[in-house]
Amino acid sequence: MHIREFQEMMKHLYFRRDSARGVKGAHDWLKDEVEELGEALNGASREELEKEFADVIAWLASLANITGVDLEKAALEKYNNQCPKCGRLPCECKF
Amino acid sequence: MHIREFQEMMKHLYFRRDSARGVKGAHDWLKDEVEELGEALNGASREELEKEFADVIAWLASLANITGVDLEKAALEKYNNQCPKCGRLPCECKF
Repeated sequence: MHIREFQEMMKHLYFRRDSARGVKGAHDWLKDEVEELGEALNGASREELEKEFADVIAWLASLANITGVDLEKAALEKYNNQCPKCGRLPCECKF
Repeated sequence: MHIREFQEMMKHLYFRRDSARGVKGAHDWLKDEVEELGEALNGASREELEKEFADVIAWLASLANITGVDLEKAALEKYNNQCPKCGRLPCECKF
């Protein structure tokens, strides 16, 4: 599924609820989901870990919906087969 | 672009670097990017806001790569045209 289609699906599912929650509320929820993903990385089952990854991308898409950002366009404008810093594939930046 | 293709692109770009950073390092970086997105939501330009969204999905894909999770599969197993809690589209859960 395209990133844009996933974002659209999340809009159909949750836009009314997420709009009412507001930008700060949705961002707080995204932070909580990233924390839960961190906990799952410390030994949860594969199934639980996958659910936590799903929740993070779901909340990121919801936040994009209520701020009017096209997540796929944003992702491909910054990352499109080259590193935005060094311009190479693979990245050759020094870290 | 499919979620899976984006994840593959991130793998080509950054897998060697991100593997060396490790799971905790990549998760810490994801948390930092979510914080930066929160700051951008407080009045950054549209362009800067879109870049922060791009960074969050990029780091989420990188973390999925180094943990061997298929982000698209994970997302669609939990969210596939119905709310995983109430089973409805749109969601009718009470929050």
